[in-house]
Amino acid sequence: MAAMARPAADPWRGRETIALVTEDVFRLSSRFAQMKSSPVRDILAVLGRGDIISFAGGIPDPTLFELTDFRESFAHVLEQQGARALQYASTIGEPELREQAAQRLCRHLPTTAGQVQVTSGSQEGLYLVATTLVDPGDVILVERPTYLTAVQAFTLVGARMVGVDSDEYGMMPDALADAIETHDPKLVYLVPTFQNPTGHTMSAERRAAIAEVLVRAGVPLLEDDPYGELRFEGAPLPPIAAQPGMARQTVLLNSASKVMAPGVRIGWLRAEGQMLRSLEIAKQGVGLQTAVTDQLAIAHYLATYDLDAHIARVADVYRVRRDAMLASLDARLPEGATATRPEGGMFVWVRLGGDVDSAKVLPRAVDRGVAFVPGWPFYANNPDRTTMRLSFVTNSPETIGEGVGRLAAAWGW
Amino acid sequence: MAAMARPAADPWRGRETIALVTEDVFRLSSRFAQMKSSPVRDILAVLGRGDIISFAGGIPDPTLFELTDFRESFAHVLEQQGARALQYASTIGEPELREQAAQRLCRHLPTTAGQVQVTSGSQEGLYLVATTLVDPGDVILVERPTYLTAVQAFTLVGARMVGVDSDEYGMMPDALADAIETHDPKLVYLVPTFQNPTGHTMSAERRAAIAEVLVRAGVPLLEDDPYGELRFEGAPLPPIAAQPGMARQTVLLNSASKVMAPGVRIGWLRAEGQMLRSLEIAKQGVGLQTAVTDQLAIAHYLATYDLDAHIARVADVYRVRRDAMLASLDARLPEGATATRPEGGMFVWVRLGGDVDSAKVLPRAVDRGVAFVPGWPFYANNPDRTTMRLSFVTNSPETIGEGVGRLAAAWGW
Repeated sequence: MAAMARPAADPWRGRETIALVTEDVFRLSSRFAQMKSSPVRDILAVLGRGDIISFAGGIPDPTLFELTDFRESFAHVLEQQGARALQYASTIGEPELREQAAQRLCRHLPTTAGQVQVTSGSQEGLYLVATTLVDPGDVILVERPTYLTAVQAFTLVGARMVGVDSDEYGMMPDALADAIETHDPKLVYLVPTFQNPTGHTMSAERRAAIAEVLVRAGVPLLEDDPYGELRFEGAPLPPIAAQPGMARQTVLLNSASKVMAPGVRIGWLRAEGQMLRSLEIAKQGVGLQTAVTDQLAIAHYLATYDLDAHIARVADVYRVRRDAMLASLDARLPEGATATRPEGGMFVWVRLGGDVDSAKVLPRAVDRGVAFVPGWPFYANNPDRTTMRLSFVTNSPETIGEGVGRLAAAWGW
Repeated sequence: MAAMARPAADPWRGRETIALVTEDVFRLSSRFAQMKSSPVRDILAVLGRGDIISFAGGIPDPTLFELTDFRESFAHVLEQQGARALQYASTIGEPELREQAAQRLCRHLPTTAGQVQVTSGSQEGLYLVATTLVDPGDVILVERPTYLTAVQAFTLVGARMVGVDSDEYGMMPDALADAIETHDPKLVYLVPTFQNPTGHTMSAERRAAIAEVLVRAGVPLLEDDPYGELRFEGAPLPPIAAQPGMARQTVLLNSASKVMAPGVRIGWLRAEGQMLRSLEIAKQGVGLQTAVTDQLAIAHYLATYDLDAHIARVADVYRVRRDAMLASLDARLPEGATATRPEGGMFVWVRLGGDVDSAKVLPRAVDRGVAFVPGWPFYANNPDRTTMRLSFVTNSPETIGEGVGRLAAAWGW
């Protein structure tokens, strides 16, 4: 079942409105007048206090960054290709990086370097796809709940987001078929693996069923996969783009942010034919090109070092933290509350049920020295306000235990 | 006198249309369906042939990059602040870089770090301002001719661009007042110093007169100043933003691309109050943040090295190249043709007059081994097709002489 609402107004409901209308000469666009600042960014901004345990951001643990390898990669690039690394370059991206990206994509889906567009992180990819396809009022179908910063990119182009019912295996194929029939969407947006915010992974059967619906209806998919390689257990699943018929009607996004480093703002997307060319032209308008220095450094890192070994090391650490968070939650959550059990990624999604509003508890939690992201902004409409997103990747198991204890105290569990 | 046209259709007239409508599932937004690839980017893309002398791009001479200083800056940042340089950070930008930017802006206009937003190059700044203010059909007033990649950013948000008559001192105040009256523009876009494409600089008197019109009408200014510091002769002029009353109704863009290095994609903008906050929120949606590694490296470079000395060195080289180009043109241009004499920047603008179309000569010129950018895409409407833009910064004086000779042969001068 799909419900519909003006997303630009609804998903941010209940949040204190920031007065964006300027008093004077700057008259905001009607699209933009609906924009609100990201709650996550705003929560992160007030976390300057050193003694707050933050479960709020999807912030990789910086002590796990391969600092030495990155230093060498930047030094190598500036030593060997300095003039090139500091110069203008193509909008589509540096050949070395596109080749490395294609090789990784080929693990599940035949991909040439010619099908890869470099992006300044996944966020730019989300935005480019949205601006290329969406006229104000056009519908994008999203999961319930969905990634809130994607909602921001979609709002900025005037999209109407419609949430489609999802369960622990991902979006429900029948609900998707109904929503397509009802809303004639320009696009379906999915995070099938270790979803943000729920941590859910769409099963193999569900991927096939969703693909079948999309191929039959001829509706494009924006498949966002920033976490897929961060798997702690179970077998890897190919992206929906690898399902029969889906490669040509999918834009698939990957990012260096979650598995290498977010600060360099390097991501890439896979698309085919005219859609790839359209995204390249959109990127000319939005920002010309991604930083060449960083593109070449990441390409060198991928060619020289063992990213898989790094990911395995990170996954070993994050697995223990996930387990610590789940154990703490099991011990402290009240009767009737649930927490997801992700096989990878960064997030646990807690649903308390009843009529409690997690956004109202946040200030009390921050007073107690712990932060989280309330669940409501992750919904395109009709939010379940008893939910919250907890990241388990940034803190040690001990700190996680202490943080969940503070959370319990704030809630009065 | 202002003339008006649907810019999305007109400025690209005469260019072979790229079929952007996909055959299948991807239905492009109506905004985007008007987009064409940048002629400059396309010309640059075919210049792989080593023996072509290119006057096409505004490409800084890479042999002038301060490679050693940049190497040290990146190494320093990754040694001293590695975890921070590779991590997520704020959307508004790193404090050190905002402080350095404010200090440079303060040379002409009191500015605090709190009034600076870091951008991924000026192009992102252009786009953020456009998406924040412009609804489809809204008017942006631009110079005749104007910067073509700004036209691309403006087209992507559905703006209608209207060209306002300009002479060698910049946009004409009376024509601006008339155009404001007629079109109720959301924004006026100007490149007052060493304009792209003409090389013209708006005089002090003209700046005052333009500011007076804008303050009286309460129309915001987007002031683009990527070249201002690249002055070869004459006294520096403060930006229009420094005129009485203009600071609060101007967004002023600066860039590292022309004076330091384009590859790092670092720029910044100055804005005040709610407009600054709006631009920050737009940037969350478009790309979260600019690469932290590059932000910190450029901040370190600015704090540690002498950018003014570097610029003086570059200006000395570019001055000689400008002189070489003007001398060659003086010797070769046909009767009735004109070339501008810029006091800085990167470009000479040639007007041949008559009924010759520079775009039609380009393939012949490329066959002869020289490239330029035809003038027509720089016009919002009613292009003067006898014009062309020549960059003098990338080539040595000897190569410039040879290139102008090839140009003359291609044209039959």
